[in-house]
Amino acid sequence: MPDASTWDVRSAPIPAIGEGEFLVQLQEFSMDPAMRGWMNANPAAAPAVELGSAMRATGSGTVIESQHPTFHVGAQVVGMFNVQTHAVSDGTGVTVVDPALGTPAMYLGLLGLSGLTAYFGLIAHANPRAGDTVVVSAAAGAVGSIVGQLAALSGARTIGIAGGPEKCSRIVSELGYDLGLNYKHEDFPTALASACPEGIDLYFDNVGGDVLNTALGNIAVHGHVVLCGGISQYNSTTRPPGPSNYMNLLVRRARMSGFVVSDYANEYQQARVQLSQWEMQGKLHAPQTRVNGQLSDFPAVFAMLFSGENFGKLLLELA
Amino acid sequence: MPDASTWDVRSAPIPAIGEGEFLVQLQEFSMDPAMRGWMNANPAAAPAVELGSAMRATGSGTVIESQHPTFHVGAQVVGMFNVQTHAVSDGTGVTVVDPALGTPAMYLGLLGLSGLTAYFGLIAHANPRAGDTVVVSAAAGAVGSIVGQLAALSGARTIGIAGGPEKCSRIVSELGYDLGLNYKHEDFPTALASACPEGIDLYFDNVGGDVLNTALGNIAVHGHVVLCGGISQYNSTTRPPGPSNYMNLLVRRARMSGFVVSDYANEYQQARVQLSQWEMQGKLHAPQTRVNGQLSDFPAVFAMLFSGENFGKLLLELA
Repeated sequence: MPDASTWDVRSAPIPAIGEGEFLVQLQEFSMDPAMRGWMNANPAAAPAVELGSAMRATGSGTVIESQHPTFHVGAQVVGMFNVQTHAVSDGTGVTVVDPALGTPAMYLGLLGLSGLTAYFGLIAHANPRAGDTVVVSAAAGAVGSIVGQLAALSGARTIGIAGGPEKCSRIVSELGYDLGLNYKHEDFPTALASACPEGIDLYFDNVGGDVLNTALGNIAVHGHVVLCGGISQYNSTTRPPGPSNYMNLLVRRARMSGFVVSDYANEYQQARVQLSQWEMQGKLHAPQTRVNGQLSDFPAVFAMLFSGENFGKLLLELA
Repeated sequence: MPDASTWDVRSAPIPAIGEGEFLVQLQEFSMDPAMRGWMNANPAAAPAVELGSAMRATGSGTVIESQHPTFHVGAQVVGMFNVQTHAVSDGTGVTVVDPALGTPAMYLGLLGLSGLTAYFGLIAHANPRAGDTVVVSAAAGAVGSIVGQLAALSGARTIGIAGGPEKCSRIVSELGYDLGLNYKHEDFPTALASACPEGIDLYFDNVGGDVLNTALGNIAVHGHVVLCGGISQYNSTTRPPGPSNYMNLLVRRARMSGFVVSDYANEYQQARVQLSQWEMQGKLHAPQTRVNGQLSDFPAVFAMLFSGENFGKLLLELA
């Protein structure tokens, strides 16, 4: 588990920009579980963040100097700018915020990788049918908070799994989950089985570990487990065991599959338009937990992901 | 692990048959890993074999008395007749052997549930493409010996996993696997990775455990793990851990799925015709390990499945 001693704050002159570059003054940082993976020696899906380099993070900010033909001074942008006050960019992977679609903070959440992961994972990859029982873990997280609402828009019955009675209550009242189940309660396995008497048609997993295993034990015939993340495992120093109930996939003729949001990069813009439209129509709520602070607050804010203190998208906003 | 003390041989009068029934004198018994599961208190896919009842098994035999309109005296039949010298049946689940397709022993192997499981699991469920790298565990077993040949007929490159150098050699020379890998060798993980430099497109799993986990570690992008069995786990007294590499399904956009052969029951006959045709054309070999013995030899012959002493279909033939 990373803590305050894992990072320090360093000062350096703001670099001069060259031809084709621009300088961003950063305002907010997205806190994502995937960032924990990048800190390992051999991450599965991205290069490691090297010791001594800036912590990698997506952020939003304003272009304050530019020698770039299309990123102009004053533009609000989001990109992989790392945890720092200023970043020089050549525009690779940078998106200009369209205020007609949403705020910069929304571009880090609903219209950023969290919302896009929910959208493509649920709609393009899993594609639930009306009447399906859809169960989502980390249902109060940045991705899970959107997945449940998208599943409900598809006509599914939705059950969210979250930590603690307050979050379980909020995912029902604020996000429209039909039911919230607290995985920390000792009766959780019984409660999940009772809530899904005909099994789980779609289980969207953000956590791994015991919760995944319990869900596999209740998978429906022809059910589908979608692997999106495994936050319960990200701080393990040994490789944790896999789900012992995997053989239920055989008996129930079910499947477990993974997807990677970047495979859908060509469709991001049309997904943003759709998500923004639903949000403006009030069909989709994009909760945020925004913490106002300094760069030095990054370790404490990042740790909130793993203690589950956020509801929806967790952001660190520079004061 | 069951042993000689698990069963005893009991004598009872041969029951009289009633209207709509017939009496079968049994000749051979099919030894199947699934039988081990039926001995547990709560089997996943079939009712338990109750203590004191005859051990359940598929067998072949000859109708020697009949009051049934379609099963006539002299017919050779296969069905779930249990481990006994004689069985009374009303014909439920009983198949009449068509000598034009194969022998009674073939109806227990290639044309029975072993061959049908290989056929529907590989061709209907997994459907490999030409050029795919297909890896099969328990490649010398009753199912695996057929799966590899069917995959090769589909144009795939085939790698079989088996226990010991002799079986690994025989699956290449007798069954046409492109490569045989011995999972008992300490270098097995390295050997599998080297043999699949671009990953495993299809892994057909009959064993579970460490071999499944190693295969998951080498799954290709968009690869598929088909769960057919888990013989390495069937004698565990505790629930063994699942495959810790399951998260590779996410990173590699891969999937793991199960199938149940009985879902294809309406297509068994046409599959038997196809399998028989390939066998008669020399495109498919159906190896058998037949042990000649008595009912009292059942425990020892059944144990050969778990020590891996069989090559292809294991049968106990009454002397």
